[in-house]
Amino acid sequence: MKKLVAEFIGTAVLVLFGCGAAVLGGDAIGQTGIAFAFGLAIVAMAYGIGPISGCHINPAVSLGVFVAGRMPAGEMLRYWVAQFAGALVGAFVLAIIAGSTASLGQNGWGPGYLGEYALPAALVFEVVFTAIFVIVILGSTAAAAPAGFAGLAIGLTLVAIHLVGIQVTGVSVNPARSFGPALLAGGHALAQLWLFIVAPLAGGLLGALFYRFKALED
Amino acid sequence: MKKLVAEFIGTAVLVLFGCGAAVLGGDAIGQTGIAFAFGLAIVAMAYGIGPISGCHINPAVSLGVFVAGRMPAGEMLRYWVAQFAGALVGAFVLAIIAGSTASLGQNGWGPGYLGEYALPAALVFEVVFTAIFVIVILGSTAAAAPAGFAGLAIGLTLVAIHLVGIQVTGVSVNPARSFGPALLAGGHALAQLWLFIVAPLAGGLLGALFYRFKALED
Amino acid sequence: MKKLVAEFIGTAVLVLFGCGAAVLGGDAIGQTGIAFAFGLAIVAMAYGIGPISGCHINPAVSLGVFVAGRMPAGEMLRYWVAQFAGALVGAFVLAIIAGSTASLGQNGWGPGYLGEYALPAALVFEVVFTAIFVIVILGSTAAAAPAGFAGLAIGLTLVAIHLVGIQVTGVSVNPARSFGPALLAGGHALAQLWLFIVAPLAGGLLGALFYRFKALED
Amino acid sequence: MKKLVAEFIGTAVLVLFGCGAAVLGGDAIGQTGIAFAFGLAIVAMAYGIGPISGCHINPAVSLGVFVAGRMPAGEMLRYWVAQFAGALVGAFVLAIIAGSTASLGQNGWGPGYLGEYALPAALVFEVVFTAIFVIVILGSTAAAAPAGFAGLAIGLTLVAIHLVGIQVTGVSVNPARSFGPALLAGGHALAQLWLFIVAPLAGGLLGALFYRFKALED
Repeated sequence: MKKLVAEFIGTAVLVLFGCGAAVLGGDAIGQTGIAFAFGLAIVAMAYGIGPISGCHINPAVSLGVFVAGRMPAGEMLRYWVAQFAGALVGAFVLAIIAGSTASLGQNGWGPGYLGEYALPAALVFEVVFTAIFVIVILGSTAAAAPAGFAGLAIGLTLVAIHLVGIQVTGVSVNPARSFGPALLAGGHALAQLWLFIVAPLAGGLLGALFYRFKALED
Repeated sequence: MKKLVAEFIGTAVLVLFGCGAAVLGGDAIGQTGIAFAFGLAIVAMAYGIGPISGCHINPAVSLGVFVAGRMPAGEMLRYWVAQFAGALVGAFVLAIIAGSTASLGQNGWGPGYLGEYALPAALVFEVVFTAIFVIVILGSTAAAAPAGFAGLAIGLTLVAIHLVGIQVTGVSVNPARSFGPALLAGGHALAQLWLFIVAPLAGGLLGALFYRFKALED
Repeated sequence: MKKLVAEFIGTAVLVLFGCGAAVLGGDAIGQTGIAFAFGLAIVAMAYGIGPISGCHINPAVSLGVFVAGRMPAGEMLRYWVAQFAGALVGAFVLAIIAGSTASLGQNGWGPGYLGEYALPAALVFEVVFTAIFVIVILGSTAAAAPAGFAGLAIGLTLVAIHLVGIQVTGVSVNPARSFGPALLAGGHALAQLWLFIVAPLAGGLLGALFYRFKALED
Repeated sequence: MKKLVAEFIGTAVLVLFGCGAAVLGGDAIGQTGIAFAFGLAIVAMAYGIGPISGCHINPAVSLGVFVAGRMPAGEMLRYWVAQFAGALVGAFVLAIIAGSTASLGQNGWGPGYLGEYALPAALVFEVVFTAIFVIVILGSTAAAAPAGFAGLAIGLTLVAIHLVGIQVTGVSVNPARSFGPALLAGGHALAQLWLFIVAPLAGGLLGALFYRFKALED
């Protein structure tokens, strides 16, 4: 139960920090500032709650950890529930501060959305970068990696991923992070939500399979 | 006594760096630069004076540490005095460099203040983000957390909090940081100071209670 | 084989993150954002795949490691093949997302290229800064250096190098990083590719020789 | 001798990175980018050459280390020579790349210099912030501080100091860093150089005395 509370809080904080920076900071901090807010939220939670739950706060990461054989399926499913619920509550608190549900940092693509990239570009970006993200997570938390650094490495990786992809999709690589804002904002964001559930999970699966394959190579 | 000197210096440095960046750097560094100045001041002091006093340099943090059962009430009160005094001296030195007390990075809300958010938004922001901040501090300095990383994690968390909230309140999450500039700037800042004492303390209390509750869950 | 897979993936990720930020993020993140994307890609890979291959992901670094006597020549050559292949695949995936091979973050100099610096400036910049980069890598991974920090130190060094030199050459300091985009973009980038192979290798050699000489000094 | 070579190289790199970012990156990276280049140069050198010489690369820091009783006077003087020589060579290499000695990131104050602050503001800024910088250095490298983190803490502190003060003086807190560019640029920079030698040394002395006094307090 304590683990699920940690995942719930952690995912709420990720949405509050990352989407909060996009909505409240916006042009005053620019996309570089928004990128740091998302990644440093991971740093905050990795050291703040990491010792409790491992700080996945991302269903694609939990899927990867499960596929890598480091977590049972039942626990993964419970983590998913906590993560989606946390993201929803995070988006809700953000809506209270922002005074509106119209703009909550929702993901998207196509005409009218940031760089106006088409669906295939959005799909390839989310699959490839989630796969890389999960490889970094599995590698930096492996026994061979230096202890204590994983939280910094993973958070700074998420900064870089956002620097690359905010123009493309706003960057999900995390179905829960997309779910919370989309459910409250509705409309376009809700109609495009499927991609931000399917693509990150596919990427997480690929990253974890690659990691297992690579691990077997030695 | 040595601990109180450290808290006094540390809080002065936080104001000098964070508010200094806002006042002297201003548009030349933007809110992303200001956010880093506040957070990296914590990194500076955490490693520079942390081994002496624990580097709270924030009355809401000392309250949280007290509520979490890691500090006696009397010491918390002495820390508070040192922190408020340090913030005042930090703001005073900044005023000397800036050549004016009109603009010292004071917090605020409402018409004419940055994003012009209303009082409820300011209140919710300060309570929620101070609570998160204190959770990160208590978690990252707990015995289970990797040793040595807390200063970086806490400082980078404060960077992210500023990226989110400078537009909303200028970001306090620290009654002393608000007190120093407001006392010297007077006027509007002084009239609104109450919120930046009440809300961060309430948030620190909530964060610490959550932490205790969560700690009991295991 | 496992090492070569790691170098292949790592170099692809470096191009995807760094050049991806330049191409997709572009003006929305500015050169400061692009600089962080390149450097944090190193942080990502250093902790994600570092324990496997050492995470050179740069032929000039492998040359330096060889000259410093820490790697046999045959392995260096195999690393080079993996690095160039990885960079090409990274640039290819980026081209798919960008929908074009015209702009892939290619390096260059002279009229029409960013700050329009002349060839001698480009040459001096690439030689000197690659030499410094290799000195930092050899020093921070030496036995005397604190364990675990090398990935952060090296990645943040690459951030700083990009802050200095994007205006000059777009910053290579890595023949593979230049090769991938140039091969796909062709034209000007391909015609200027020689400098970004010769100069970083010369710099890597100089840095490693200095390091050996300095090491003998004690 | 090996230590002096390390200090020479390190100070050259500090000027090449920090002043290089100001001169070559300039408006394309902004003052936030320039601030990071200066601070991350410290991170680079702290982990790259730190194990050899302690990586002072700053006469005010060597003075502070001497006053704190951690270094003999003779060695301090030899460090000073290496640091000033390194800064000069760093500025010279930068001038070659920039193709001019007119603008080398020289420090200054008054009409025509950035924020146009007057001499007293420049003086107070340099004394106070060098004192803080030296306190952070002495504290984070003390036996009680967590091992390995000093380089990051000191470098990130220098980032914050630059975020605050580039508008005021361009930020010296380091006589050598001011000396190299001023000697080559001449004119105004050379006429104002005295302040950037006197004030940082005074600040370093104050910081070290405070540290000794505080250390005696326990």
